[in-house]
Amino acid sequence: MLPPAGQIEELRRGAAELLTEPDLLKKLARGKPLRVKAGFDPTAPDLHLGHTVLINKMRQFQQLGHEVIFLIGDFTGMIGDPSGKNATRPRLTPEEIQANARTYEQQIFRILDPERTVVDFNSRWFAPMNAAGMIELAAKYTVARMLERDDFAKRYKSNQPIAVHEFLYPLVQGYDSVALKADVELGGTDQKFNLLVGRALQADYGQEPQVVLTMPLLEGTDGVQKMSKSLGNTIAIDEPAEDMFGKLMSISDTLMWRYFELLSAKSLGEIAKLKAASADGGNPRDAKFELAAEIVDRFHGAGTGAAERDRFIARFREGALPERIPESAIACPGAEMKLANVLKEAGLAASASAAYRLIEQGAVRVDGERVSARDAALRAGSIYLIQSGKRGIARIRLGKH
Amino acid sequence: MLPPAGQIEELRRGAAELLTEPDLLKKLARGKPLRVKAGFDPTAPDLHLGHTVLINKMRQFQQLGHEVIFLIGDFTGMIGDPSGKNATRPRLTPEEIQANARTYEQQIFRILDPERTVVDFNSRWFAPMNAAGMIELAAKYTVARMLERDDFAKRYKSNQPIAVHEFLYPLVQGYDSVALKADVELGGTDQKFNLLVGRALQADYGQEPQVVLTMPLLEGTDGVQKMSKSLGNTIAIDEPAEDMFGKLMSISDTLMWRYFELLSAKSLGEIAKLKAASADGGNPRDAKFELAAEIVDRFHGAGTGAAERDRFIARFREGALPERIPESAIACPGAEMKLANVLKEAGLAASASAAYRLIEQGAVRVDGERVSARDAALRAGSIYLIQSGKRGIARIRLGKH
Repeated sequence: MLPPAGQIEELRRGAAELLTEPDLLKKLARGKPLRVKAGFDPTAPDLHLGHTVLINKMRQFQQLGHEVIFLIGDFTGMIGDPSGKNATRPRLTPEEIQANARTYEQQIFRILDPERTVVDFNSRWFAPMNAAGMIELAAKYTVARMLERDDFAKRYKSNQPIAVHEFLYPLVQGYDSVALKADVELGGTDQKFNLLVGRALQADYGQEPQVVLTMPLLEGTDGVQKMSKSLGNTIAIDEPAEDMFGKLMSISDTLMWRYFELLSAKSLGEIAKLKAASADGGNPRDAKFELAAEIVDRFHGAGTGAAERDRFIARFREGALPERIPESAIACPGAEMKLANVLKEAGLAASASAAYRLIEQGAVRVDGERVSARDAALRAGSIYLIQSGKRGIARIRLGKH
Repeated sequence: MLPPAGQIEELRRGAAELLTEPDLLKKLARGKPLRVKAGFDPTAPDLHLGHTVLINKMRQFQQLGHEVIFLIGDFTGMIGDPSGKNATRPRLTPEEIQANARTYEQQIFRILDPERTVVDFNSRWFAPMNAAGMIELAAKYTVARMLERDDFAKRYKSNQPIAVHEFLYPLVQGYDSVALKADVELGGTDQKFNLLVGRALQADYGQEPQVVLTMPLLEGTDGVQKMSKSLGNTIAIDEPAEDMFGKLMSISDTLMWRYFELLSAKSLGEIAKLKAASADGGNPRDAKFELAAEIVDRFHGAGTGAAERDRFIARFREGALPERIPESAIACPGAEMKLANVLKEAGLAASASAAYRLIEQGAVRVDGERVSARDAALRAGSIYLIQSGKRGIARIRLGKH
């Protein structure tokens, strides 16, 4: 094992916050593998690159000799949304959760080492707990401290309802750390409060408090909002190599550097060099090729990234992909917008009828793919690389209305 | 059965609030016996006159043909105080709770009709409930509405901690009404919030909401604070007849009229007559004899009140109990005060040494009982009728410091 100080240096890379470094140092100094926990929602088994920021960090712990616990929070998933207000959180059956867990495993083991990964379920300790146990757990935290959580504070101040059971969920998550005797818990920066509840509960139950390590939230392909399935701005890790490559090529240059920081395995030095070359008159498209190829290689095997790059270039006839692509934003009046209208608005066609003609002639490509259906539409909330004819090209951010 | 309007008139006597009268009218109009619930703490089986305000009202429902449910809240009693902050709320074993229940039964059936009384325990439905069920229950109410409860609002504003589980207790009590399909819930005015939670939960579970009837809280013998064991100002219903009579004779004239209103079975007209006679130059002591005799008769059998009155008078030698007894308040520096010092402060002895001499001579009586132990002390927070020698007499309110 690497000496503690060296481990901490690696573990800090890309991390938002480490609470606390002295605690982590103390745990590492014992020279024993740590138990590193991260919790996942049982309802969304389609992992995307946003999730991999955390999973990469788990992988790093494994490479340093530690054990990671991939915890599926199935207990609350089986309750569903008791307030009945959230239609997107239906009650899951144990069979559905098992199926989701298998889908998780298929995906996470593209990154994690199965030998050093425990997949666990919090229903293991919560299903046998009775109502009295939940009351005892609820006694461990105060209302005032719960109301300090950002989203609760905002909702309380603006008179939006908070159901009492919502105060129980951070305690459920915190108790998971007690049940697992976690040494470290990883989570997104939005999870910091809940992770600290775990720290407090462990102390209350006579355990050494876990170290909390938070990772930044990755922006989606729109470059603005957090990558999230419901926003339609994700790159899923089981997407076909071609789609994954195309989507990565469609992101803005600014977002590309953010993805390098949070997703690439390249050292910070290598990334700085690429950045310098690009600033120094180089072609940022080449850096983007490197990023896209690295990510595609990770999920589809070595060499697939280079192959996709070749196919991507070949799709642009006559090597017409320019070095600088103009970007513009179009406000979408609904959930989606006709491609013909997008072409017109973006100035890639003189009129709507000209746009329809170009589409029907097969002269229009979206993210490198030919689109010839007259009524094709693009979904709002994403960025598209659109080519029209031989010279027309633009990167279009299609805004949600 | 009496017609609904007539029943409501009787049920309103002495009540603080009825929510709502139209609801009660609708339920009564069906002509079927109502299920009338009142909840009791499993930890304090020593019922005192304060409790009987409510139990008398339960008795009244029985006399009108309804069924009462004497609900012992043993579920939370078995949890104890999970915050560990309340040393007076230890965790009770099922055996202790059963023993307490038997003590309750011995006491309540001096007032209630056993034929129309169901004694129940809320562990019957809460012990089988699991943690998920408690979370679902917690989803039925919002944090903001909980914080509207007076004591929660005050504590939150003054930064005194409220543990999250305290928000679950009103829901537990409210769910009791759902489990029992209660038509009416009775409680003290301090219970109004919790009783309304029951009303809301029943509606949420598709039941007709219960009617809420609150009764005023009876002041203790000090005439100021709510009668409560922890304040030492109670008259327990299983106290010996002599003590009960003596304590009732020690209360102030003002408090006497309050006790008439809330404890006596006399009609409001009879009470008004007694009051008029007393205001019109009559002796309030005679009215007090009537009250004390009625209450002692109730708990010790017909005729015991009159016998106690005779004994009480006989204890005052030479019939020396004056018609007007001077009252004064003494600030007690601690939890109790030496009787000798009380005598001196009250002007019933010229000095502390004179007071000790009077006590040792057997010339001092407290609430009619001779006290001859030199070091005797009186507990703060109550009122005492103190006689010293042949002429000295005073009603002393010994204040808490």
